[in-house]
Amino acid sequence: MDGKSLFITFEGIDGTGKSTQVAILAERLRAFGFACVETREPGGTVVAEKIRELLKSIRAIRWSAEVEILLLTAARRDHVDQIIVPALKSGKIVICDRYLDSTRIYQGLSDSKIRAVIEDIHERIIGISPDLTFILDLSPCLALERIRGRGIDDRYFESYGDKIELLRQGFLDLAREHPERCLVVDASLPAAEIADIVYGEARKRCE
Amino acid sequence: MDGKSLFITFEGIDGTGKSTQVAILAERLRAFGFACVETREPGGTVVAEKIRELLKSIRAIRWSAEVEILLLTAARRDHVDQIIVPALKSGKIVICDRYLDSTRIYQGLSDSKIRAVIEDIHERIIGISPDLTFILDLSPCLALERIRGRGIDDRYFESYGDKIELLRQGFLDLAREHPERCLVVDASLPAAEIADIVYGEARKRCE
Repeated sequence: MDGKSLFITFEGIDGTGKSTQVAILAERLRAFGFACVETREPGGTVVAEKIRELLKSIRAIRWSAEVEILLLTAARRDHVDQIIVPALKSGKIVICDRYLDSTRIYQGLSDSKIRAVIEDIHERIIGISPDLTFILDLSPCLALERIRGRGIDDRYFESYGDKIELLRQGFLDLAREHPERCLVVDASLPAAEIADIVYGEARKRCE
Repeated sequence: MDGKSLFITFEGIDGTGKSTQVAILAERLRAFGFACVETREPGGTVVAEKIRELLKSIRAIRWSAEVEILLLTAARRDHVDQIIVPALKSGKIVICDRYLDSTRIYQGLSDSKIRAVIEDIHERIIGISPDLTFILDLSPCLALERIRGRGIDDRYFESYGDKIELLRQGFLDLAREHPERCLVVDASLPAAEIADIVYGEARKRCE
């Protein structure tokens, strides 16, 4: 069934279960006949995946926030051009694991000048914003516990641990700034319970 | 001798001898005691060279001009941060093979909307412009003859051949738009003669 297009994003710190919820929501919507596209950022296209690899490979090199924002925006523009806009135009539901809000928080949280650059480049180059965003919220303790098994190197893990509460608060602030599209969901609930809340909200927007 | 900093760029279509002239100018200025940094775009830093590789590797993939501009600007910002600004701050002469003018012409020539995006992102993210730009000008026939031996694939070569006159005119128009910094040099002259003209103009700005 091709119907009303809808652009849904999942946001939140690592370990909150975003990719799990993307998969469950897509499966449930499909079971009810909705055409869905699951995708993620940074990535989602050949070019964007190459940029994702580049970002990973140069993590050890000193570079400015502006360079990172330009690379992330290049990946996003390709993703929007190749996947998101064509899917929305054909009446599909796009479900995306991370989008602009992650750039706002991970790159822009601690520097208002950088945050302004992010908003400005988004406005100029990307334009499109989600209709519905689930902010999966979890205490830093639980989130760190969940990602400890993912083979992330210890030094990165430590520096991340220091700022995780700030990042979490950043996402909660974003939800308050954009109440028309953002819904905070308690990510400490069982996955099936979160999936019910998410599905209910998504269905309301599909009617 | 660390003296007055100067930012010099060489621009023009392929085959006009830019890299040769960059090398000769740097050598002559050094011989007279000036501290010089030779560099090129896209490239010049580890991150920028990686972006250059990425741009080459995805040439076969369809993508938008905006994605290319963002990647080129990411490379440029890193180049400016790591090489150009530090060198200028320490009173050196920076000599760069291609810079913003190449983006204006190669990406922006045929589309005024794209050209506006280029100017806007440059203003917002880069800011710094050259003090002196040599536009090496050559007839398409001669330029194509010179690059024929470089092992470029035939299909690319053909499509490039079709637009080379437009690109050349684009650079000449730029020179007219920015007479305060642009100097057109006849690239059909012997390299030594071009080098004399270039050196004379550069020295005037070093006094």
